[in-house]
Amino acid sequence: MHSTSLEYLQSRPRESGAVSVLQSLGQVLAEQVEGPQLRALAYLAGRALGAAHPISTCNTLSDVEAAANQLLRRMDWGWLKVEAGAADVQFLHGCSPLRSWFGADGLSWSGAIFEGIYAEWLQHLGAGEQLDLRQVGDAEGVDDVLRFRLAHQHQFEQA
Amino acid sequence: MHSTSLEYLQSRPRESGAVSVLQSLGQVLAEQVEGPQLRALAYLAGRALGAAHPISTCNTLSDVEAAANQLLRRMDWGWLKVEAGAADVQFLHGCSPLRSWFGADGLSWSGAIFEGIYAEWLQHLGAGEQLDLRQVGDAEGVDDVLRFRLAHQHQFEQA
Amino acid sequence: MHSTSLEYLQSRPRESGAVSVLQSLGQVLAEQVEGPQLRALAYLAGRALGAAHPISTCNTLSDVEAAANQLLRRMDWGWLKVEAGAADVQFLHGCSPLRSWFGADGLSWSGAIFEGIYAEWLQHLGAGEQLDLRQVGDAEGVDDVLRFRLAHQHQFEQA
Amino acid sequence: MHSTSLEYLQSRPRESGAVSVLQSLGQVLAEQVEGPQLRALAYLAGRALGAAHPISTCNTLSDVEAAANQLLRRMDWGWLKVEAGAADVQFLHGCSPLRSWFGADGLSWSGAIFEGIYAEWLQHLGAGEQLDLRQVGDAEGVDDVLRFRLAHQHQFEQA
Repeated sequence: MHSTSLEYLQSRPRESGAVSVLQSLGQVLAEQVEGPQLRALAYLAGRALGAAHPISTCNTLSDVEAAANQLLRRMDWGWLKVEAGAADVQFLHGCSPLRSWFGADGLSWSGAIFEGIYAEWLQHLGAGEQLDLRQVGDAEGVDDVLRFRLAHQHQFEQA
Repeated sequence: MHSTSLEYLQSRPRESGAVSVLQSLGQVLAEQVEGPQLRALAYLAGRALGAAHPISTCNTLSDVEAAANQLLRRMDWGWLKVEAGAADVQFLHGCSPLRSWFGADGLSWSGAIFEGIYAEWLQHLGAGEQLDLRQVGDAEGVDDVLRFRLAHQHQFEQA
Repeated sequence: MHSTSLEYLQSRPRESGAVSVLQSLGQVLAEQVEGPQLRALAYLAGRALGAAHPISTCNTLSDVEAAANQLLRRMDWGWLKVEAGAADVQFLHGCSPLRSWFGADGLSWSGAIFEGIYAEWLQHLGAGEQLDLRQVGDAEGVDDVLRFRLAHQHQFEQA
Repeated sequence: MHSTSLEYLQSRPRESGAVSVLQSLGQVLAEQVEGPQLRALAYLAGRALGAAHPISTCNTLSDVEAAANQLLRRMDWGWLKVEAGAADVQFLHGCSPLRSWFGADGLSWSGAIFEGIYAEWLQHLGAGEQLDLRQVGDAEGVDDVLRFRLAHQHQFEQA
């Protein structure tokens, strides 16, 4: 056997068996960890995800939306719509895999994964430590739309 | 659109984005949770996995090995070899996805996932509460073979 | 390395790179092969698929629908609805992956894959050589519903 | 339901059901099409694949090897090693998914898929129409190493 082959075979991705392990780990965490700590864990996992999968430099919220959607689609994590209002900016995130992984009950805490991902991306883009992005309300509709509120627009211009 | 279509599209599996979330969750847990508690969480996740994916009735250890390998292969979780000795029975498990998901550092705690899976299967097969299956040593070799020791053979005959 | 490991690593499924090869093969076939021959090839591929992935014994059309949907879902091939009328039976098949694999233009010939799958299943279930199942019309709606007409109900009772 | 959701759900990739369709299509083609024509079809499919998934500009054969391996790994198509000799350049390609998709018998014709991919890449990189890259011999070893011979080095320098 060629020397490269074993290394190649051993480093192939292991996707298909991961969903069930993620599901059972989520189930056990939900049983063992209190709500706020569970959300905090999910948030930290989201921060790590955002750091491991950064989006490129963006100047406007439209850029952020486009760059985020490109990565979200590649990861099959759902879609993002940014709605800029007078007082705040809302991030709407639909078709996430959270219900598929953590069940209907898991939607309440696992939304913090995306809160962490978006927070990491915005911070990385220069939003600074005073960044205030928070999930508001629960998943809505049959497509489980999550809503995150960004208190200030910081330096992002509306495009 | 036909009424069945939305339901179909929404219930399709969400595999491809799960690995990175499992990786980051594992990373955060390893940072936040002490070693023994982390192993306990992994073990409980394994018990849940074994219960969610049971193996069929087996009369001999050869049957257990065959039934386990069928399921392990379907899940892409690796392979099992059962070695029955005079004093105990050893379960060797190779090519698991643990290194791919949790890194080299994660092998020390995540082996408990398979400890939990095997314990659940054996208990389900009638091994009783006095079951004593434990991981011994660390992952060995380039194929990361995990070794679990079953203290007593219970009712399983050697085939 | 344990002797089982190489065999395990080499026999793991190779899914992720298959879609693009299927797409390009379909594209080349559509350029090189005339319409009727192309449909005939797709039909034969469907017969082979139906034989490789049989459904269990069914007594009624409801059974066929249920058994087919179980397998279709497992393969992510879409959904089936059987509509039994006075003169014929119609098989409606939605959410197939054909557009994703062969593009909008490929829907005209690639529907024969499912014609072949259903023909093989019905024949295997005892429908006999005089079986007459044919696609009627083109894919309809945003969910690309394919319609197949089974001329006679043979021995299947309506449940 | 949010208007973006249906579009998102419908455009998610359809990977898991593609392997079996590719397998059955390959089986039917091998039964219906003569050897040389079958290789020609596979070669054209490879050209289309190479065009759909181009590699970036390369100045040396080392660059080609590195760029190719990056893409081959992302597609899970195997690995490439370029061996530059005095008289020719050999492309060694191992761990391809061809056996998994087309069986042991299919290795003889399906190697032309990679012949087409490499020919397309080299032409795209400026190798010109007089390019002469051909598979030599059969797949070798347990890792099915395919060997392609590039008659002239054209403008690629050895790095």
